Amino acid sequence: MNDAFYIAVGTELLNFRVNLYSPVLSQKLMRLGFNLKGEITACDELNSITDALNFASKRADLIIISGGLGPTFDDLTREAVSKFLNINIIYSKEVEHFLLDKNCDISKPNIKNQCYVIESARLIKNDNGTAFGEVISTGKKCFVILPGPRNEWESMWPDVKNIVLKEFQLPEIYNRVIRFADISEVSLENILRPIMQKSNELRYTVLAGPNSCDFSITHNNKRLVDSVVDEIKGLTNEYIYGYDDDTIEGVLGKMLSEKGRNLSIAESCTGGLVSSMITDVSGSSRYYIGGINAYSNEIKESILNVKKETLEKYGAVSEQTAKEMSENVRTIFKTDYSVSITGIAGPDGGSIEKPVGLVFFGMSDKDKTIVEKRTFIKKDRLSIKKAASNTALYFLYKMIKS
Amino acid sequence: MNDAFYIAVGTELLNFRVNLYSPVLSQKLMRLGFNLKGEITACDELNSITDALNFASKRADLIIISGGLGPTFDDLTREAVSKFLNINIIYSKEVEHFLLDKNCDISKPNIKNQCYVIESARLIKNDNGTAFGEVISTGKKCFVILPGPRNEWESMWPDVKNIVLKEFQLPEIYNRVIRFADISEVSLENILRPIMQKSNELRYTVLAGPNSCDFSITHNNKRLVDSVVDEIKGLTNEYIYGYDDDTIEGVLGKMLSEKGRNLSIAESCTGGLVSSMITDVSGSSRYYIGGINAYSNEIKESILNVKKETLEKYGAVSEQTAKEMSENVRTIFKTDYSVSITGIAGPDGGSIEKPVGLVFFGMSDKDKTIVEKRTFIKKDRLSIKKAASNTALYFLYKMIKS
Repeated sequence: MNDAFYIAVGTELLNFRVNLYSPVLSQKLMRLGFNLKGEITACDELNSITDALNFASKRADLIIISGGLGPTFDDLTREAVSKFLNINIIYSKEVEHFLLDKNCDISKPNIKNQCYVIESARLIKNDNGTAFGEVISTGKKCFVILPGPRNEWESMWPDVKNIVLKEFQLPEIYNRVIRFADISEVSLENILRPIMQKSNELRYTVLAGPNSCDFSITHNNKRLVDSVVDEIKGLTNEYIYGYDDDTIEGVLGKMLSEKGRNLSIAESCTGGLVSSMITDVSGSSRYYIGGINAYSNEIKESILNVKKETLEKYGAVSEQTAKEMSENVRTIFKTDYSVSITGIAGPDGGSIEKPVGLVFFGMSDKDKTIVEKRTFIKKDRLSIKKAASNTALYFLYKMIKS
Repeated sequence: MNDAFYIAVGTELLNFRVNLYSPVLSQKLMRLGFNLKGEITACDELNSITDALNFASKRADLIIISGGLGPTFDDLTREAVSKFLNINIIYSKEVEHFLLDKNCDISKPNIKNQCYVIESARLIKNDNGTAFGEVISTGKKCFVILPGPRNEWESMWPDVKNIVLKEFQLPEIYNRVIRFADISEVSLENILRPIMQKSNELRYTVLAGPNSCDFSITHNNKRLVDSVVDEIKGLTNEYIYGYDDDTIEGVLGKMLSEKGRNLSIAESCTGGLVSSMITDVSGSSRYYIGGINAYSNEIKESILNVKKETLEKYGAVSEQTAKEMSENVRTIFKTDYSVSITGIAGPDGGSIEKPVGLVFFGMSDKDKTIVEKRTFIKKDRLSIKKAASNTALYFLYKMIKS
């Protein structure tokens, strides 16, 4: 694989905003056949950017630069690239026409500024903003300048891809991601090791999430990748909830939409996070009716109708309470399905019998309730909430699918 | 201010895990009197780390390196620093004793590995793990090696601070952050500009969040900073919910705890996120009783008892519905306070009268209900959920405080 380097420009990325793009970019680059070798965050100073360009261009053939293309005085990326490559900046009529079409007032100096581009650059239109992307090739190296906001540069990626593939005369790389839940990285690797050893010309990466794993397979032979995906599916199908850009909340939502069924949720230790995840999906109002966050035992009893005897005999964190919470929320909200979560998010409230991280899940439909139990060890409060929420949605997905 | 540079070591930071530390580190460095000049993410290769050390040490006096200190073959940070500075690695009896005290089996080669440190390094104990921190001073430059996990390196920071302050013979820098809600970055800057112009020897930064702003003031004269904080407070007190590391959910929770009062929540467009934020705080079960996520109109009517006429006449996204949601959830859950949120998170469902981003908030106690209305423009679904959730908690905080 060829090497790529990523330069993120912006003092604010160092001081207060977090740059979340490296992993996203890395996946996209891998599909192009490039390995992301490193990343530099440069502040809004000309020297800082040219230094980074110098460092990156010695270590990679493809250099992606994002940010610093705006209209204000501290946006210096274009100037830095021009200086570093010793190529002039020129006024582009193409950009001017584009901005006029967008009803931009180019008599304003800062808008007019956007019309200046690197002389030899191939320009990439920005559907979500005013700054053009620029690709500059210098024989062996390729410099790609993109705007900072993710929705802007991501929508330009197909154009970047085509130019880069041509420039480096590369075959397109094929990548599939298989998404797993309720299995550890170690267990997954143990199951898949024979396949990875047998087909060792493919590139594999595993990313562990909150009680979930993403397994990525890359090669330029589509048929080979597909056959390995099928083989993996044969061995691990019970843990798979999706592929590529799927999320558990998206996959579950799609299934409910297609079946025309709906859902209610009763949460305790996750405190609303499961409902919040479900409603992160646009259009979730078609299948998500509502839920109860029963944080106190009184509410479990008075609103969710969990029996006083159940709470007294088995406790709020128990199989029996999870079962009643799930069954009762389904009845109260009159939905086809329901899911409940009760556990100990910590850091306090654990005991030897019921440690921090212990969580019970109830999944109901009109015929049955399934209860599952998991313990998320060595995790902090927010990680336990997140792992339990992912797992709850996965258990529900599995029950509805079967 | 002196310059610092941050090197994050780990191939996984490039490929799939996000490094969230730069802004956290930047704040800590600023309080030490250092400006974070740039950041490099290096992969787990010796050359990649020494290259980064070379680049960073030419541009800063203080170099912070995190990660790559574990016991496996691809943990190369110590070796890279040793090679770069040309200082030997030695076996440390101090680390050995520490590991034996922790019942670590140092007969295992990978555990034993952890006992090796840079010869001239001052060692920093790790209360949350096995890898020691190391500070190496080379006359003018100072290299600080820390473990990757945040809970490990953050707990070691007080020791790092003391060593660095001594090493550079610096006076301690004093920093305060004022946390604002429900005011835009632009409005805040307009109000504070006269103060910033008058006291222009202080360093100011603004960080805009979801309908919130953090304003940071730094100088080595504590009395000067405190007097500016007081001045700002005088002008903007109605928008301030906290200082320094405060969060709105933490501040609200503390107030409820101290007053011995409790809370219930009725959510529509935020879909559980407000409850999830409240329950992110450890000990929130003392004051958060529970809530209802009434996503569909049927549930607003049947469970939250919003009047059918209200929904028909004014719609689910209206002042009247927000008022009934808040009042009714307080009655149903028998709590001292309640908050409700109903709005349009988009991207669909907006109209000219009720655009995407329009949200109504209801805040109730036994005597009254206050209703507020905000429109969060040009934002995506998740940002609207987050802004509305922050704002709901802030409105409740303000009502209870007054």
